[in-house]
Amino acid sequence: MRELIIGGAQMGPIQKADSREAVVRRMIALLDQAKSRNCDVVVFPELALTTFFPRWYMEDQAEVDFWFEREMPNGATEPLFARARDYGIAISFGYAELTPDGRHFNTSILTNRKGEIVGKYRKVHLPGHVEYDTQRAFQHLEKRYFLPGDLGFNVWSNEGAVMGMCICNDRRWPETYRVLGLKGVELVLLGYNTPSVNSQMSAEGLEKRLFHSQLSMQAGAYQNATWVVGVAKAGVEDGHPLMGGSMIVDPNGFVVAKAESEDDELIVHGCDMDLCEFGKTTIFDFARHRRIEHYGIITSQTGASRPAD
Amino acid sequence: MRELIIGGAQMGPIQKADSREAVVRRMIALLDQAKSRNCDVVVFPELALTTFFPRWYMEDQAEVDFWFEREMPNGATEPLFARARDYGIAISFGYAELTPDGRHFNTSILTNRKGEIVGKYRKVHLPGHVEYDTQRAFQHLEKRYFLPGDLGFNVWSNEGAVMGMCICNDRRWPETYRVLGLKGVELVLLGYNTPSVNSQMSAEGLEKRLFHSQLSMQAGAYQNATWVVGVAKAGVEDGHPLMGGSMIVDPNGFVVAKAESEDDELIVHGCDMDLCEFGKTTIFDFARHRRIEHYGIITSQTGASRPAD
Repeated sequence: MRELIIGGAQMGPIQKADSREAVVRRMIALLDQAKSRNCDVVVFPELALTTFFPRWYMEDQAEVDFWFEREMPNGATEPLFARARDYGIAISFGYAELTPDGRHFNTSILTNRKGEIVGKYRKVHLPGHVEYDTQRAFQHLEKRYFLPGDLGFNVWSNEGAVMGMCICNDRRWPETYRVLGLKGVELVLLGYNTPSVNSQMSAEGLEKRLFHSQLSMQAGAYQNATWVVGVAKAGVEDGHPLMGGSMIVDPNGFVVAKAESEDDELIVHGCDMDLCEFGKTTIFDFARHRRIEHYGIITSQTGASRPAD
Repeated sequence: MRELIIGGAQMGPIQKADSREAVVRRMIALLDQAKSRNCDVVVFPELALTTFFPRWYMEDQAEVDFWFEREMPNGATEPLFARARDYGIAISFGYAELTPDGRHFNTSILTNRKGEIVGKYRKVHLPGHVEYDTQRAFQHLEKRYFLPGDLGFNVWSNEGAVMGMCICNDRRWPETYRVLGLKGVELVLLGYNTPSVNSQMSAEGLEKRLFHSQLSMQAGAYQNATWVVGVAKAGVEDGHPLMGGSMIVDPNGFVVAKAESEDDELIVHGCDMDLCEFGKTTIFDFARHRRIEHYGIITSQTGASRPAD
């Protein structure tokens, strides 16, 4: 038994007008709850400090850069790090990162219980588009504002578990979990901001969107025998609805905790990392069962081909 | 609209004492039902002609070879091919294949409406073990009796759709669907023989086993925007229970037809191949979204590593 008590700190909406400081106060309130429930690790959403700004089309780079953090921690987030350190809780959260050399990433970080950053991840699978798209019900401009992550999918031995991170759309890609799985991951931490309606197909509403999110996380957990913690920013941001559905999935693919609201809400589960062992040593013992000689095009070919008719 | 009416021809148990000829008569009866329901394609299970013999430990190679087919079609299966040809129905089924040069594979074939074999697949992901395992509640000796498939995961343009095959345990591996997805698959045909209880963990009974089977097929369908047809051999074979749960999954990952019994039972759904287009051109447009520069170890590393502590 290697139990870590995990908190998934779902956040309600953040409006454009909300300050970082106000948001951090909400995150600290969630951390207070997590402390009262004996959490060891708390996971916050993607872009936890701001509204989901990629829904807004901007041409002025200064306007874009307003949404980015130039260092972490910084003045606005230092109180969150201090509280986590005081409580001895490891945390993970997402933010928009602007590097000293001027590159923009959709990033998340992981700390240990001392509040030290031990891991950084930059989102690899950016959804959406670059230019204004008149065909969409609303914009999703992640490919405009961010570069694809350059750090790959990594794991860290942290506080007694092998932890990995990914962000939002990454969770739909089996490659994400498989790379982490091949590195021995036991706990995947991920945040998301997912519109409640498909911008390109209005019939794909909340129920189907929640299903796809859950399906992807359950499959990733089961097929790699790992815990997965997925945490939403939810609710209506300046008129644009984001889905909730934050959940903790066990290494057999079963949901063990799930948020009920679209607001700030903490879900908690005591997660035994040793539960990963059965799958990793039997049906998903990769060394015995994988056949990489037949997987070649997964890494040699990006797009799909079609057979000659 | 490119509709194919697909039949999933689940089969009930086949006892050791049942002859191939008796089994083929059951398959033909299912084909008759399929004809009456206007099916274009009918999918039968893995090892459709015999009991699931890998549960039996054998040392005498002649005893093993009794369960294998030396040619296809052969005397026992010719009536099935003839009936399919008469009906103009394309079929797929699994059998144990013994090649002229003495190699053993767990194989499935695909025909066109003329009853001609247009595709062959040999199971890549063999589960189980090679030697008698005293730790298991029952044996699962696929690694003893079969070689890993040497043909890879291929697709065929057949009767108006891009079809691919896999077998049983292959369905739990995201690599299976992804290789097929990169080849443009629209319809994955697969059969299985899955024990109702995990031989290495008795607490993992029927309900969880059905969940894992469904989860894997739903995720594979959704993440590659393809139809998936999974067909069981089910029921109690000489005292050993196999699960049912045959189903047809649409390219959004939703189950649209599902077997209710553990017997011979035909499930039918009109499957529009054009439904694959939305996913393949938006969220799972691989050319725009995949980042193979971060997937390297999926094909370069077979087993899982662990991070240094």
